[in-house]
Amino acid sequence: MSTNQLNVGIIGAGRIGKVHAENLAFRVPEARALSITDLNREAAERVASRCGIPAVAGSADQILADPAIRAVLICSSTDTHADLIVRAAQAGKHIFCEKPIAHSLARIDAALAAVQQAGVKLQIGFNRRFDPNFARVRAAVAGGEIGAPRLLHIISRDPAPPPVSYVKVSGGIFLDMTIHDFDMARFLIGDEVEEVYTAAGVMVDPAIGEAGDLDTALIVLRFRNGVIGTIDNCRQAAYGYDQRAEILGSAGSIATGNCYPNQATISTGQCVRRDLPLNFFMDRYTESFSNEVRSFVQSVVENKPTAVSGLDGRIPVVMGLAARKSFDERRPVKLSEIQ
Amino acid sequence: MSTNQLNVGIIGAGRIGKVHAENLAFRVPEARALSITDLNREAAERVASRCGIPAVAGSADQILADPAIRAVLICSSTDTHADLIVRAAQAGKHIFCEKPIAHSLARIDAALAAVQQAGVKLQIGFNRRFDPNFARVRAAVAGGEIGAPRLLHIISRDPAPPPVSYVKVSGGIFLDMTIHDFDMARFLIGDEVEEVYTAAGVMVDPAIGEAGDLDTALIVLRFRNGVIGTIDNCRQAAYGYDQRAEILGSAGSIATGNCYPNQATISTGQCVRRDLPLNFFMDRYTESFSNEVRSFVQSVVENKPTAVSGLDGRIPVVMGLAARKSFDERRPVKLSEIQ
Amino acid sequence: MSTNQLNVGIIGAGRIGKVHAENLAFRVPEARALSITDLNREAAERVASRCGIPAVAGSADQILADPAIRAVLICSSTDTHADLIVRAAQAGKHIFCEKPIAHSLARIDAALAAVQQAGVKLQIGFNRRFDPNFARVRAAVAGGEIGAPRLLHIISRDPAPPPVSYVKVSGGIFLDMTIHDFDMARFLIGDEVEEVYTAAGVMVDPAIGEAGDLDTALIVLRFRNGVIGTIDNCRQAAYGYDQRAEILGSAGSIATGNCYPNQATISTGQCVRRDLPLNFFMDRYTESFSNEVRSFVQSVVENKPTAVSGLDGRIPVVMGLAARKSFDERRPVKLSEIQ
Amino acid sequence: MSTNQLNVGIIGAGRIGKVHAENLAFRVPEARALSITDLNREAAERVASRCGIPAVAGSADQILADPAIRAVLICSSTDTHADLIVRAAQAGKHIFCEKPIAHSLARIDAALAAVQQAGVKLQIGFNRRFDPNFARVRAAVAGGEIGAPRLLHIISRDPAPPPVSYVKVSGGIFLDMTIHDFDMARFLIGDEVEEVYTAAGVMVDPAIGEAGDLDTALIVLRFRNGVIGTIDNCRQAAYGYDQRAEILGSAGSIATGNCYPNQATISTGQCVRRDLPLNFFMDRYTESFSNEVRSFVQSVVENKPTAVSGLDGRIPVVMGLAARKSFDERRPVKLSEIQ
Repeated sequence: MSTNQLNVGIIGAGRIGKVHAENLAFRVPEARALSITDLNREAAERVASRCGIPAVAGSADQILADPAIRAVLICSSTDTHADLIVRAAQAGKHIFCEKPIAHSLARIDAALAAVQQAGVKLQIGFNRRFDPNFARVRAAVAGGEIGAPRLLHIISRDPAPPPVSYVKVSGGIFLDMTIHDFDMARFLIGDEVEEVYTAAGVMVDPAIGEAGDLDTALIVLRFRNGVIGTIDNCRQAAYGYDQRAEILGSAGSIATGNCYPNQATISTGQCVRRDLPLNFFMDRYTESFSNEVRSFVQSVVENKPTAVSGLDGRIPVVMGLAARKSFDERRPVKLSEIQ
Repeated sequence: MSTNQLNVGIIGAGRIGKVHAENLAFRVPEARALSITDLNREAAERVASRCGIPAVAGSADQILADPAIRAVLICSSTDTHADLIVRAAQAGKHIFCEKPIAHSLARIDAALAAVQQAGVKLQIGFNRRFDPNFARVRAAVAGGEIGAPRLLHIISRDPAPPPVSYVKVSGGIFLDMTIHDFDMARFLIGDEVEEVYTAAGVMVDPAIGEAGDLDTALIVLRFRNGVIGTIDNCRQAAYGYDQRAEILGSAGSIATGNCYPNQATISTGQCVRRDLPLNFFMDRYTESFSNEVRSFVQSVVENKPTAVSGLDGRIPVVMGLAARKSFDERRPVKLSEIQ
Repeated sequence: MSTNQLNVGIIGAGRIGKVHAENLAFRVPEARALSITDLNREAAERVASRCGIPAVAGSADQILADPAIRAVLICSSTDTHADLIVRAAQAGKHIFCEKPIAHSLARIDAALAAVQQAGVKLQIGFNRRFDPNFARVRAAVAGGEIGAPRLLHIISRDPAPPPVSYVKVSGGIFLDMTIHDFDMARFLIGDEVEEVYTAAGVMVDPAIGEAGDLDTALIVLRFRNGVIGTIDNCRQAAYGYDQRAEILGSAGSIATGNCYPNQATISTGQCVRRDLPLNFFMDRYTESFSNEVRSFVQSVVENKPTAVSGLDGRIPVVMGLAARKSFDERRPVKLSEIQ
Repeated sequence: MSTNQLNVGIIGAGRIGKVHAENLAFRVPEARALSITDLNREAAERVASRCGIPAVAGSADQILADPAIRAVLICSSTDTHADLIVRAAQAGKHIFCEKPIAHSLARIDAALAAVQQAGVKLQIGFNRRFDPNFARVRAAVAGGEIGAPRLLHIISRDPAPPPVSYVKVSGGIFLDMTIHDFDMARFLIGDEVEEVYTAAGVMVDPAIGEAGDLDTALIVLRFRNGVIGTIDNCRQAAYGYDQRAEILGSAGSIATGNCYPNQATISTGQCVRRDLPLNFFMDRYTESFSNEVRSFVQSVVENKPTAVSGLDGRIPVVMGLAARKSFDERRPVKLSEIQ
C-alpha cells in the first residue's frame, strides 16, 4: 500500500477502540494502525489479530515513544483522556480523542493548552456529526434550504439505562449522554448557546436517583442568534434507540427520523407495523464512525483543521455543567456563569 | 324530526358561529337551531338561510328571553364571553362558549360562579380534544398503551401570523394561540401543570414585537405527576398548519402527525414529495368541530357532565398568564403564583 | 333557499340511496330532494325523515310522472337500472345511475339509446373518480407532472367477501368489483384499453368458486397508447379495505396510499405501528360520494356534460366480459371481440 | 489469521469482482483471497493492491491449477461462466458464479452436470436474496406472519438503460434484468412458477427496440401452489433505482420499500419532500453482496448446501426464455414448453 499512509497508534482496545481499529483497517486506506495497547492485553491482541495490526504495545507510553507513529487515537476510559492528550501533544503526535475530554474544565484547559503549544491536531469523537442523517440536517441549514433557523428539537433516548455502577462514574447524564446532543445543537445551528434551562427527573430507575443522577431531562437552549431549542433525553425508550432532530426555519423545516433494519411494512388484522428501529449505537451510527476517523486522517494527511476541534470538545462540557446547575438551582443559567 | 331535539340559539354569526350552525343543521340530528343573532344582521341572515334557521334575533337578549330555547352557543367576540355566560346562566340556558372565557381571572370566576349558581351546563370550545388524532393519543395514554407518561411534546404552528391589529387585542400569543395547547397538554396527560418556563422571541415580524407580543415560543411544563413537556409555537410555518403531539411513556411512545389533502407521493428526478398539509384550521379540524357540538348537545339531552368544563376553561388562562410572567421575569413560574 | 335549486327524485332508499339523500340534503345546496321511493316503504320513510325530503312516493313511476322533478337518482338494484334509465329518459328526466348500468350490453345499449334520443343527461356512479387521492393521481398525469405514462398498477381489495347469496347474483367479480377499477384505469390514463389478460383463482372461499365465480384476480391491461398495467383484486384483505394506484411515467411516478382514521404512530417494545386503514367504503370514499352528486347537479344546473358519461358506464362492462372470457379461454382477449 | 480460513481465487476483476474482493478482504474473516486474475491485468493488480491479495494470476487456468485454492469466484463476462464452471468443477474447486450461468439451457445443463459429477459446491450470485429488505419479506412468508400467500408484486426498475451496445449482447431484458426478479419471485413465495404471460414494449428508447429488445415489461406469474403475481420492469425510472416487493396473504400483507441515503424530510412552501432513493445497485445492495459471499464461504467451510443452488441458476433462465416466448406469441406460456 501507499507510502503516504498515516501511521497510527491506538490507545484502548475496548468497544470503541475496536470500532476505530476496524474502520482504519477496512475502510480508511489512507491510514494504517501500527500498534495498539490496552490495560487488558488480551483485548488488544484480539483486535490486533482481527485487524492486522502488527504490534501490541505494552503501554501508551510505548506508543507515544514510537517515532514511526504520527497520530494516536485515544479510546481509553474518560478519566485518562486529558492526561493522554497532554502526553501525546508533548510527544508531537496528532490526536483523535473520544468524548468527553474530561469532566473538569481545568483539566480540559490544560489539555487544550498542551495541544496548542505543541501545534498538533486534535479531533474530538463527536461521531454523530458524521451521520448521514444529521449531516443532511446541517446541510439544509447551512445551504439555506429552510431559511433562518428559529426552533430546534433534538430527541435522544437510549434503549436502556447503563448499570448503576457506571452511572456513578459517568459524570452524570449531562456529561455522559446529553454531551452528544449539546454538540449536535451547536453543529446543527452553527452558533453558540448562551443560556440553558433544565427540567428533569428520575422516572426510569430510582437507583439512578439514589446515585445522585437523573434519567429523564428536557434542556432548553437559547442561542446567541436568537434560536431557541430543546433537547429531550431519556435513559430508556421501550422501542429502542431514538435519535432525531428537527429544525423550523423561516422558509421551512427539516426533520430526520430513526433508522430501521429494513423498509418492510406488515399489515395484519391487528395493525400496520414495522420492525423496531436499529437498537444499538454501533448499528445506528456505523457509517458515522468510519466517516469521522477518515475525516481525522484526512485532516492530518492534508494538513487541514480537524472537523471537531478541541474547543468543540470543551463547550459541551460547559453546557453540561450549566444544565446541572440549572436543575439544581431551578433557574435558567448562562454559560458565562460556568468557570 | 324528533320532539326530543334540543332547541338551540346561536349568538354570533362570524366564522366560528357559521361552523357551529352548519354542524347543528347537517350533522347533529339531536339538536335544532331556532334562532341566531349577530351585530352584523346580514351575516346572521346569511347563516340562517344557509342552515334553515327559522329566526334571526335582534339581540342576544332576545335569544336568552326565548323560552323555547334551552341552550345557547356563544360565538361572539372574546370580550363578550364572560358577560354572556353570566346572563345566559341567569336565564337558565345551558351554555357552549368559545375559548377563552376571558383574559381576566376575575371575570372568568364571576362567570363560573353564575353557572354554578344557576346549575346549568357549560362547555368550553376546546375543539381539538375532539380531533381523531389527538383523541387517539389521549386514548393511548388513558388505555395504558404506552405505560406511564414521562415526556410530552406539542408542536402547534400557524401558517401565517394574524394582522397586527388583531394581535393587539388578542391577549397575546399565550392566551390567543398557546391556550389551545395548554388545554391539549392537560387533556393528553390527564394531570395538572404546576410550573411553566418560557423561552420566546420575535422572529416572524418585528411589528408583533412592537405591539408588545411574541411570535415564537417554547414553554416547558412540569406536571404534578412528574411528567415534563414542551409546547412549541410559531405564528408562521412556511409549509402550513403544523399540529402534532408526541408522548414518551414507560412502555412506548405515541406520536401523531399532520393531516394531508391526499395520500399521493410523487417521485421525480428532483425528489420524492407530497402535497402540503391541510393549511387552514377549518379543514384540519373539520371533524373536531362537529364532534364537539354533538358532545355538548348530548351532555344536555342526556344530562351528563360536559366534556370540557368551566374549570377546563379557566386553567389554560392561568397557564397563559404564568407563561407570560415567566418570559417577563426569565424564570420558572408556579401556577400557584397566579391569582 | 334558492329558487334555482335542482329538484330531484330518489329511486331506492338502500345503503347507497341513503348516502345520496344525505349528501343532497346536507352538502349540495344547489339541489333539493322532493321525493324518494323504495320497495321497502319504511326504508324510504326513514330516509325522508332524516333528510327532510317532503314526499315518499309509492313507486318510481310516481316520481317520473312528477313535473316538479327534473332529475332522478337511480339507486335501486342493478337489474332495474337499464329499464329505469329508459323510462326516466322517456319522462325527460336527467339521470344519475349507480354502476353498473346492466350486465348485458344489449340492455346497456338500449338504455343509452333512450338517453340519447331524449337528450337528457346521464351520469354513472363511478364515485372513485371524485376521491381526492385518485383525483390527485389523475391530475398528475393530465398535468404532465410524471411525463408520459408507461406502467399502471391498481390495487383494490375488499375487507371481506360478500355473502355467497350475493355473489350468485352479482354478475361475477369482474362486473361487480373490478368494474370500478376498469373505470379507474381508463380515468387515470385517459385512454382506452385494447386487450386484457386475466389470471385468477379461488383463494378466499371455495363456496365462491362453487357459485361459479372467482375471488382473487390479476388483470393485465394494454392501452391503445402503449401503456400496460395491472389490476389486483381480492375479496378479502385481513387488514381491511385496500385502495391504491401507482403510475410510472417518463418523468417520474405517482402513487397513492390508503386512508387512515388517524395519523398516530405507536412504538412499543414489539413494533412501530398504526391503526388499520379505513375499513368500509362509506368511510373511505365519503368525500367522493358528495363530490360526485354535486358534480351531477352542477352538470344539470349549468348545462354541461356529466363527468362520467353513459359510454363510461358501458366500456367497463365490456372490459369485465373480456376479463372473464380471458380467464375462461386462458388467453389475452381484445375488447373488440366482445359484442 | 486463522488456519481454518478458506483460500479463494477470484476470476474477473471488473465491477463485481472488485466488490467480492473487498468483501472477502474486509468483511469475511473466514476467507482469504490468494489470487486474482483478469484479461485486463492492470485491473487485477489494482484490486489485489487495494485488498491485500498476494498474487495476480496470468489466467484462470493458473488459479484453477493452484492446489492451495479451494474455491473460486467466477466474476468474468457471462459468456465465460458455463465453461469456467466446468473447468473449475473438474479441478475440484468449489464455485461461486455470477448470474446468469449462460443464456442457453444446453450450456447450463453441461455446467451443472460437471458440478454434480465433481461433487463440488456451486452458488449462483443472486445477491438480492441476501438484502435485509427482501430477506424480511421472505421471513414473513416462511414464518406464517401473513398466512398463505395469494398475490405477489415485484417492482424492479433501473435508473437508466445500459448502452445499446450492451443491450445487444445482454441476452435481452428477461435474461439480463428480469432474471433477478424471477429468482426473487421463487425465493419469496418458496414455490415454482408454472406459467408466465408477458406484456411489454419499447417505451424508453427506440434504439433498444431496434436492437431486438424491450425496455418495459409486465410479466404475470402463475405458481404451482396457486399464487399469482406480477413483475414490473422498466429500464428507466426518473427518480432512480426502484426495488420493491409486496405479498398479500390470507392473514395480511407485507411490502418493502426503497432505501434512502437519509431519513430527512424537508417541508417548504412548495411541498414535503425527501431526497431520492439510493440510485446505484452497489449502494442499494451493499449489504447483500457481503452477506452472499459470506454465506458461500460458510457453506464450504461448514460443508452445508449453498443458499442458491445450480438449479436456482437454471430455472430463472427457463423463465426468461418463456417470458420472451410469451411476448413473441402473445399468449401465456408454460415453463414445461421450454426445453
